[in-house]
Amino acid sequence: MKAKPTVLKLGGSVITDKNKPATANLDAIERLANEIFQANVSPLILVHGGGSFGHPIAKKYNLAEGYEKPAQMFGFSETHRAMTQLNGLVMEALLSHDVTAVVVAPSSCVVTKAGRIQSIELKPIKRMLDMGLVPVLYGDAVLDSQRGFAILSGDQLVSSLAINFGASRIILGGDVDGLFTEDPKSNASAELIRHVSLEELKSEKHKIEGSKATDVTGGMLGKMQELIPALEHDIRTLVVNATKPLRVYKALKREEVIGTIIEKG
Amino acid sequence: MKAKPTVLKLGGSVITDKNKPATANLDAIERLANEIFQANVSPLILVHGGGSFGHPIAKKYNLAEGYEKPAQMFGFSETHRAMTQLNGLVMEALLSHDVTAVVVAPSSCVVTKAGRIQSIELKPIKRMLDMGLVPVLYGDAVLDSQRGFAILSGDQLVSSLAINFGASRIILGGDVDGLFTEDPKSNASAELIRHVSLEELKSEKHKIEGSKATDVTGGMLGKMQELIPALEHDIRTLVVNATKPLRVYKALKREEVIGTIIEKG
Repeated sequence: MKAKPTVLKLGGSVITDKNKPATANLDAIERLANEIFQANVSPLILVHGGGSFGHPIAKKYNLAEGYEKPAQMFGFSETHRAMTQLNGLVMEALLSHDVTAVVVAPSSCVVTKAGRIQSIELKPIKRMLDMGLVPVLYGDAVLDSQRGFAILSGDQLVSSLAINFGASRIILGGDVDGLFTEDPKSNASAELIRHVSLEELKSEKHKIEGSKATDVTGGMLGKMQELIPALEHDIRTLVVNATKPLRVYKALKREEVIGTIIEKG
Repeated sequence: MKAKPTVLKLGGSVITDKNKPATANLDAIERLANEIFQANVSPLILVHGGGSFGHPIAKKYNLAEGYEKPAQMFGFSETHRAMTQLNGLVMEALLSHDVTAVVVAPSSCVVTKAGRIQSIELKPIKRMLDMGLVPVLYGDAVLDSQRGFAILSGDQLVSSLAINFGASRIILGGDVDGLFTEDPKSNASAELIRHVSLEELKSEKHKIEGSKATDVTGGMLGKMQELIPALEHDIRTLVVNATKPLRVYKALKREEVIGTIIEKG
């Protein structure tokens, strides 16, 4: 691998319809596959979320709390199967747009401990990057050495991969334009914050946490908390709205784009 | 893991129609999923072949020889995608028959060197076995540290997994009744060999190799060669015809069954 990789996350809220169980947003997936192909960034690691594929089943079986009863084993398998299906749609779109993508199934190479990554096998991913292939990972149900299993978020994976491969940057593609002063979905006066330092992020955290906007920034707060270790490794992060055309493309191309830059500062 | 695991291989010739590209034999898959559920053996590791899903694409792009030109990267991805599709059908059948199966994608956890397994991440598989889940692996296109990529056969995986997890036995489910004195498909006088020692297998090898029956025993010879390391670790192997109902079930249940037993002796 000659250059430092870029880690791109496509949120579950972007590639699925979060209101309908197991419903992919195929238009968004196709458009983003094309944006990734057009931007032609290498080395690139892609991570996507589960949206309406993984979460409902994981919730139904209460998987996030770990292993409690045998019936959950089917929940584990079903969650993974659902994520494999969503990933299959993403892979199909990438390959049909001539992106040389290769899936890496987190449940096949990660074990967590109490929900945090305990071991992650990096050799195949390293080889893929060396060869110019694009490894594609996703939020997944994984084995947990303490709880039996756990839900590994795409965000935790992003941070871990970025640190392990010394990424130059992280691009988080979500369904809002970036970080806001208030919840943009309920406050018309919310303003986009264009630049946040790690220091500010840490001090802002409680304020975000204290807001009522858990539906929107709850997800965003979780993402930000996962990001901190990567930011501490000096990996610059750009949050953009992947539901809007060309935002991800411009971010990948390092062009001017609406979004929030977060860096160690 | 309390007991020593059983490693069961379902051949590509059993679960697909080898004469039609990317055509699964759904009846066989359903029947075998049910046999596995009924036999209720634990711990169990399942490996399946690629049959008409993996081989034609791998051949089209000449993947077995390793990386030669960029176009092959699509071949690698396509081979893996095809195998994922076949595996998806197997997983669906297993889950619908209440087998708590979890897929382990070899390309996500194995790197080969000149076609031989160089590293294999075993932690997730170990955790699955500890929890009573059934890891399901398959022949796959994998990354190779020397050649770029390689085709990892299900048979090489079987031997490696059996040795690494100290398996009690290997069951190979293929499309013939076992090992024969001659090619059973062209010689009516061919007799089934019920018992072969490792010693005999090694000395017989050249004879098998020398026969013209490469279509049938070519596959069988390859399997036998892959088996030798496992046999040397004293892991008993039973070759049965998985295209015939209840052979796999009986093998799993340790009941009397038509087939060939191979052991160190």
